[in-house]
Amino acid sequence: MQIAIPLYDEFTALDAIGPHDVLASLPGAEVVLVAERTDVVSNDHGSVRVVPAATLDEVPKPDVVVVPGGNHHNQLPDGPVVQWLRRVDATTTWTTSVCTGSLLLGAAGLLDGRRATSHWLALEQLTRFGAEPTGERVVFDGKYVTAAGVSAGIDMALRLVARIAGDEVAQGVQLGIEYDPQPPFDAGSPEKAPAAVVDFVDAQLRPMVEGRVPA
Amino acid sequence: MQIAIPLYDEFTALDAIGPHDVLASLPGAEVVLVAERTDVVSNDHGSVRVVPAATLDEVPKPDVVVVPGGNHHNQLPDGPVVQWLRRVDATTTWTTSVCTGSLLLGAAGLLDGRRATSHWLALEQLTRFGAEPTGERVVFDGKYVTAAGVSAGIDMALRLVARIAGDEVAQGVQLGIEYDPQPPFDAGSPEKAPAAVVDFVDAQLRPMVEGRVPA
Repeated sequence: MQIAIPLYDEFTALDAIGPHDVLASLPGAEVVLVAERTDVVSNDHGSVRVVPAATLDEVPKPDVVVVPGGNHHNQLPDGPVVQWLRRVDATTTWTTSVCTGSLLLGAAGLLDGRRATSHWLALEQLTRFGAEPTGERVVFDGKYVTAAGVSAGIDMALRLVARIAGDEVAQGVQLGIEYDPQPPFDAGSPEKAPAAVVDFVDAQLRPMVEGRVPA
Repeated sequence: MQIAIPLYDEFTALDAIGPHDVLASLPGAEVVLVAERTDVVSNDHGSVRVVPAATLDEVPKPDVVVVPGGNHHNQLPDGPVVQWLRRVDATTTWTTSVCTGSLLLGAAGLLDGRRATSHWLALEQLTRFGAEPTGERVVFDGKYVTAAGVSAGIDMALRLVARIAGDEVAQGVQLGIEYDPQPPFDAGSPEKAPAAVVDFVDAQLRPMVEGRVPA
């Protein structure tokens, strides 16, 4: 089973690495980080520089795709990753995303008429692609699976492992990465965080998120 | 504020990237991935190849250090990362670890007489370095902070942000990465997972974990 994670400049590192570490523990799985070229790809903070294992063209038929979010203005409306998603989706078993990666799936035309999620600040943008946004953390709609912001990719990938290999295998992977979360605050969603914190994060991140989809 | 994350061949990617994405959101923070050389460093699965931003010697006085776990047999008993930890700890504000990264802190002599944690399979090995293992997910003992296995680094880093910049900033970072965890199973610790799953993971991972500390 080949699992491909497409990277692009300014991707969000945890969006990719959370699912990576879950899926790489799946028996028989090969996880491949791919990008347009095999040159170094940098994350959104400019602090994580990754050498892709292969080009997009070299991975034409992955079984599973996981698209990370990030500042992907350079991929919209129809950049190399979006074009590749449209091509490989023809033969995938699962096509998935984390955070604003769902906007790339949308741009590829893969979420039209489907329920989907994204980072809470980007949810409404899903409607531009004909998707029906939901506030759920992980959304399955056929073979399309979308996760909410950044850290939700871990929850999504564990659910995917359960679908692929069964609950016991998924529990084993969860125990292996000791995923018994104990966040210090109950502030991980806009419904739960204090209003002042929501306003602050909204003001800080919305311009970046809105820049992700050209009007 | 400079935050250094030392990498070495066969590090666990999520141990490094979980805290990275939390700490990189801290206003005024610069996160630097460092390694013995600036050559590509590969993770434990061989699937994530990272170009470090600087060598260990080029980052002699970080304010905060976060040591990821992994298959670090090549760093024990006194490899380049261990030696660097001993040097930089003289001036850090916080010296921290994720997963078996605590064994590297131990090897550097920094946990003697301190309460600390690690991956559940490696807890007992902490005693070789004079540390007192605890089953807590995140342990603060003075300026030393250790986290349990892999995913616990996210919880640890959020607590650290709260100590450094206050609860509201930490809540903002948590909301930014939408950390409202919803694991599909309550199987993230050996106390909670089904016994058969614990036995399976133990059999699968213990030889690797035990290989991390030469007898």
